[in-house]
Amino acid sequence: MESEPTRIMVAVNESTIKGYPHASISSRGAFEWTLQKIVRSNTSGFKLLFLHVQVADEDGFDDIDSIYASSEDFKNMKRRDKARGLHLLENFVNKCHEIGVLCEAWIKKGDPKEVICHEVKRVQPDLLVVGSRGLGPFQRVFVGTVSEFCAKHAECPVITIKRKADEAPQDPVDD
Amino acid sequence: MESEPTRIMVAVNESTIKGYPHASISSRGAFEWTLQKIVRSNTSGFKLLFLHVQVADEDGFDDIDSIYASSEDFKNMKRRDKARGLHLLENFVNKCHEIGVLCEAWIKKGDPKEVICHEVKRVQPDLLVVGSRGLGPFQRVFVGTVSEFCAKHAECPVITIKRKADEAPQDPVDD
Repeated sequence: MESEPTRIMVAVNESTIKGYPHASISSRGAFEWTLQKIVRSNTSGFKLLFLHVQVADEDGFDDIDSIYASSEDFKNMKRRDKARGLHLLENFVNKCHEIGVLCEAWIKKGDPKEVICHEVKRVQPDLLVVGSRGLGPFQRVFVGTVSEFCAKHAECPVITIKRKADEAPQDPVDD
Repeated sequence: MESEPTRIMVAVNESTIKGYPHASISSRGAFEWTLQKIVRSNTSGFKLLFLHVQVADEDGFDDIDSIYASSEDFKNMKRRDKARGLHLLENFVNKCHEIGVLCEAWIKKGDPKEVICHEVKRVQPDLLVVGSRGLGPFQRVFVGTVSEFCAKHAECPVITIKRKADEAPQDPVDD
């Protein structure tokens, strides 16, 4: 007899290189590590909770000239953003269905580090898994790292999975 | 068919209140969390590696007057320290035998945070679990925290399990 499944929140984001619907290298890494090292064959013992945070009022503005954007354009952009986010999550959800692991997935808007910690508080997972680019101290100052903030502030145990060295793109800030 | 078991290193130390062979509240917490939330019923999927670090040249001096200690006395102290450390590890190992989880356990001397990171490098576990007293910033400055150092420097993913608030002793520096 097993108790409730262990609920693992996995924070996922899109690739900075390939864009939506592709997941970033580090969030794919964090997901695969969780399956291989924690879930293993015990697919009924875990439930994965995928959270994708979209940075508010920043996405979607590159493509069009915002001066000429009507309110209708903005609505369309928002809709498109959401659709792209869902498409990103779909990859993770499909993989879970395939191997028979329960999961949930949702999108929030805001500052990723703040939103992740807020969602941990609300959802109370047993564990939060976040990927990390493994940036050096110099880059960290300018880029900021979501994983460090979460490890410090999230109200649950946190595992940070560093991107493998051989998977790092030319510019390590990319992901 | 499963691959090699996931190797989880668990750093354990003695209780500051009850002394040997009792484990500290936070290392017991870290161990129990690992069994409940990660290992669950999949006892063949994991191997636990218990590391106990004894602070070098500090333990055992409270009991006798060191001015009168002969070299034979020192040898006896060292032997006694080791026996106490083994007794501490025995509790964890017995529990693993009981539920059928593979394990190893060993003792090292030195500065716990340095030794743990060194052993991670040597043994290459998939995951390191460390307990933490969850001290506030003021206490942390004077006491230092092993878990923070390991989370930053260990060459593998690290989970820090904070002591539950209702298990904290009167003086939170105790454990």
